[in-house]
Amino acid sequence: MKKKTAKESLSISTDVVFPGDTNALNGMFGGELLSRMDRVCYIAAKRHSENIAVTVSVNHVTFPKSVPLGSTVTIEAKVSRAFSTSMEVFADVWTEDLFSGVKTKVNEGIYTFVAVGKDGNTLPVPELIPETKLEKQRFKGALQRRQLSLVLSGKMLPNEASELKSLFD
Amino acid sequence: MKKKTAKESLSISTDVVFPGDTNALNGMFGGELLSRMDRVCYIAAKRHSENIAVTVSVNHVTFPKSVPLGSTVTIEAKVSRAFSTSMEVFADVWTEDLFSGVKTKVNEGIYTFVAVGKDGNTLPVPELIPETKLEKQRFKGALQRRQLSLVLSGKMLPNEASELKSLFD
Amino acid sequence: MKKKTAKESLSISTDVVFPGDTNALNGMFGGELLSRMDRVCYIAAKRHSENIAVTVSVNHVTFPKSVPLGSTVTIEAKVSRAFSTSMEVFADVWTEDLFSGVKTKVNEGIYTFVAVGKDGNTLPVPELIPETKLEKQRFKGALQRRQLSLVLSGKMLPNEASELKSLFD
Amino acid sequence: MKKKTAKESLSISTDVVFPGDTNALNGMFGGELLSRMDRVCYIAAKRHSENIAVTVSVNHVTFPKSVPLGSTVTIEAKVSRAFSTSMEVFADVWTEDLFSGVKTKVNEGIYTFVAVGKDGNTLPVPELIPETKLEKQRFKGALQRRQLSLVLSGKMLPNEASELKSLFD
Amino acid sequence: MKKKTAKESLSISTDVVFPGDTNALNGMFGGELLSRMDRVCYIAAKRHSENIAVTVSVNHVTFPKSVPLGSTVTIEAKVSRAFSTSMEVFADVWTEDLFSGVKTKVNEGIYTFVAVGKDGNTLPVPELIPETKLEKQRFKGALQRRQLSLVLSGKMLPNEASELKSLFD
Amino acid sequence: MKKKTAKESLSISTDVVFPGDTNALNGMFGGELLSRMDRVCYIAAKRHSENIAVTVSVNHVTFPKSVPLGSTVTIEAKVSRAFSTSMEVFADVWTEDLFSGVKTKVNEGIYTFVAVGKDGNTLPVPELIPETKLEKQRFKGALQRRQLSLVLSGKMLPNEASELKSLFD
Repeated sequence: MKKKTAKESLSISTDVVFPGDTNALNGMFGGELLSRMDRVCYIAAKRHSENIAVTVSVNHVTFPKSVPLGSTVTIEAKVSRAFSTSMEVFADVWTEDLFSGVKTKVNEGIYTFVAVGKDGNTLPVPELIPETKLEKQRFKGALQRRQLSLVLSGKMLPNEASELKSLFD
Repeated sequence: MKKKTAKESLSISTDVVFPGDTNALNGMFGGELLSRMDRVCYIAAKRHSENIAVTVSVNHVTFPKSVPLGSTVTIEAKVSRAFSTSMEVFADVWTEDLFSGVKTKVNEGIYTFVAVGKDGNTLPVPELIPETKLEKQRFKGALQRRQLSLVLSGKMLPNEASELKSLFD
Repeated sequence: MKKKTAKESLSISTDVVFPGDTNALNGMFGGELLSRMDRVCYIAAKRHSENIAVTVSVNHVTFPKSVPLGSTVTIEAKVSRAFSTSMEVFADVWTEDLFSGVKTKVNEGIYTFVAVGKDGNTLPVPELIPETKLEKQRFKGALQRRQLSLVLSGKMLPNEASELKSLFD
Repeated sequence: MKKKTAKESLSISTDVVFPGDTNALNGMFGGELLSRMDRVCYIAAKRHSENIAVTVSVNHVTFPKSVPLGSTVTIEAKVSRAFSTSMEVFADVWTEDLFSGVKTKVNEGIYTFVAVGKDGNTLPVPELIPETKLEKQRFKGALQRRQLSLVLSGKMLPNEASELKSLFD
Repeated sequence: MKKKTAKESLSISTDVVFPGDTNALNGMFGGELLSRMDRVCYIAAKRHSENIAVTVSVNHVTFPKSVPLGSTVTIEAKVSRAFSTSMEVFADVWTEDLFSGVKTKVNEGIYTFVAVGKDGNTLPVPELIPETKLEKQRFKGALQRRQLSLVLSGKMLPNEASELKSLFD
Repeated sequence: MKKKTAKESLSISTDVVFPGDTNALNGMFGGELLSRMDRVCYIAAKRHSENIAVTVSVNHVTFPKSVPLGSTVTIEAKVSRAFSTSMEVFADVWTEDLFSGVKTKVNEGIYTFVAVGKDGNTLPVPELIPETKLEKQRFKGALQRRQLSLVLSGKMLPNEASELKSLFD
């Protein structure tokens, strides 16, 4: 199976926050943003695996800034690391000021997908080649996050999680 | 007002066709696609004018191919020409085969927007500079389409529509 | 195949503009209106052809007036002309003032549909008989629009477009 | 306040059943139809009262037939009787066979609205004049239904409900 | 078929009123609430019958109080009586004040469902055992409502409706 | 500020998977489930804080099992720990087989919210008292997750994260 670069999976979605997407403070409703991020990450995972992709976990999504009504929201998703049948996908979320056009990073999220066939069985996925500095940094972090996830779900002993443990040395 | 290139307004949206978006033949419902195209063109017009944009007309949208359930749909919109207070925006629509990743152009549309302030009054917009061959071709065509629109709505006499008339010489 | 009058395809949809349908200026979002118009035109085309109808193009839609939140919106669609396998459908859009009940025409659009069978193949459609003055005028204009569309897509030479050319004589 | 005929409030909505509106049996989901009927009745009540209308009760809606995916659904609503500040509205629901065009009545519902001003206070509504045989029959029934509603909510003693009681004589 | 208690069918849904669910007065749109109530009653009927359930009628829903934007809305549905193939389901609707947490009953509705198999044919449903005082009162009322429904639809003579008639004695 | 138990914030939502919520494999779309979970967690956070709550992060959500079309989905959310202005909320997701009624746990997620006033400023929240064994276990874990989140975002040095570090001893 041919290796692929992170850039080949890049998926971009730009949309607007309309009144139907807002909460009681006139900011974008968190659940709506989670759902849009999942759709763009899904496309990145589909592009990398060339198969149907199914969300298996959302590792970490932060919402440090509110996204006001009328804003433009751009979500950029790229596969950050591929394991045997699963892929970690990073989504970066930017908003753009209506009048100045200034872009602000408001949010980022990490989703994990598996590739499956039409029968629902998992399938192998190509290896990922990180190229930029940020891609390499996320590629390295992906292994720590994967070990953390295995430890938290009881599928790996903390002492076997070498990458994770090294954080505390 | 500083001139801007077409590329500066480029807006991209990638999404998936889910069952809720389909018609009786399991293809994407035309009205749903029209609505998504309008949103992306709206963002391109907002980026060019740095103001609120309001759709004033849809000049021409063709749907030569059906977009099947489960497809990835990418809409790319760019301003093709700016007039004093209005902008013509082109949207190109591509689908991507789930398994082969092959991209196919399925649709294109031409929308016209005006820039307005918070009070709803129209505002001037920057001139557009076309750069690529396709941008230049659409820039030229925009004047013909504008004259055609003015002729069809009775706001210009056919004989004054110089660009349009030249088509038949 | 029995000819049918324009009136037999008349399809009416009345609905309200709720907050979920509006843009940043509290008017109805253009894409939402385009989508509703497509649905009503689709029904008119289905009634005329007695088959599934698929949108092939949106010829021209203008949005001269904004439709405010809370308005009643009535869309009336009728087939304006039938060709061998395609139909041109006109949609007129009216709003109604909440308190005075006064109706205002805000928008009109021209959609083209083909009739298809369950296998997706195109099917012949009955001829259309225009009766009123407006129906006859739109029937005549439909041929010009069709020629324009063929010229613009390179499927007809400008000089063969007799109806269209006569506009400039 | 000028009396108005039932016909003046007639509101029609025609739409299609798409996959997003269906239940596990590929028929239109009951809640979706209830919601659409409420919107059309709301418009009829708004037209009669020339004010904002608020649903106060749904008196009776039956769903004797399933509405299959792809069907055309037409809802026709008219005010059936006006009381001092409230209106009873009847909605009749028809479907149309895609191929034969045959219309079938599938459903009917009775909604009650009050007219309110922008401050939310109830306002008087014009009297209704029934004209056709069916309008007269529903006008008469409206009083029985209103008494039944008052009896069931404990606001009227059964023996005072003259119209209702006469059913059992 | 084993009898079941009302409590076994209890279905609860708590949700928030977002801008996309409101009408022109910033209260929850009646049709949206009707649709949500139908979904929760559907689940109660499914739990009681252990089969697909299809709405056959909405007997009576009142909306005495408006539900403001931002409110929490809780819908609790329980089967109130089972007949041979149909079930009456009661939905009680509560809102909760955002700041004080005080709960207020705003609405109640009575829906009727039949149980059907995958082929769409009606199936028998288990008997219902009411336990609390309110459950017993609604169980008794269900027979009156059923007779009223049969009388109003012409399927039962008023004089045969013993339970209903007794109201006026 | 009066301490509150976990149980006081319990929020339950039961709904059905309809065709509009599914992906290409006829299972519930991950993004749709994330959005529903966020809404229920939001209500639990609102109930605990008696203020508006805003999502600040999604700590971990796993989707080990697919949720098929037509399933009943129940989401139960409870605050697991309160910090000075933030709350961790656990959502457990259950599905119910249509015919057997058997319940299966399919998913769980951890969301973090802050309480804010109408001006958008953060507000203090009451302390949480865990009561059951599971509540106590999640209460303890919440501190580890909070330290992990601070470490990963560079706001705490790994060696200061005492609770987290103890995992590896």
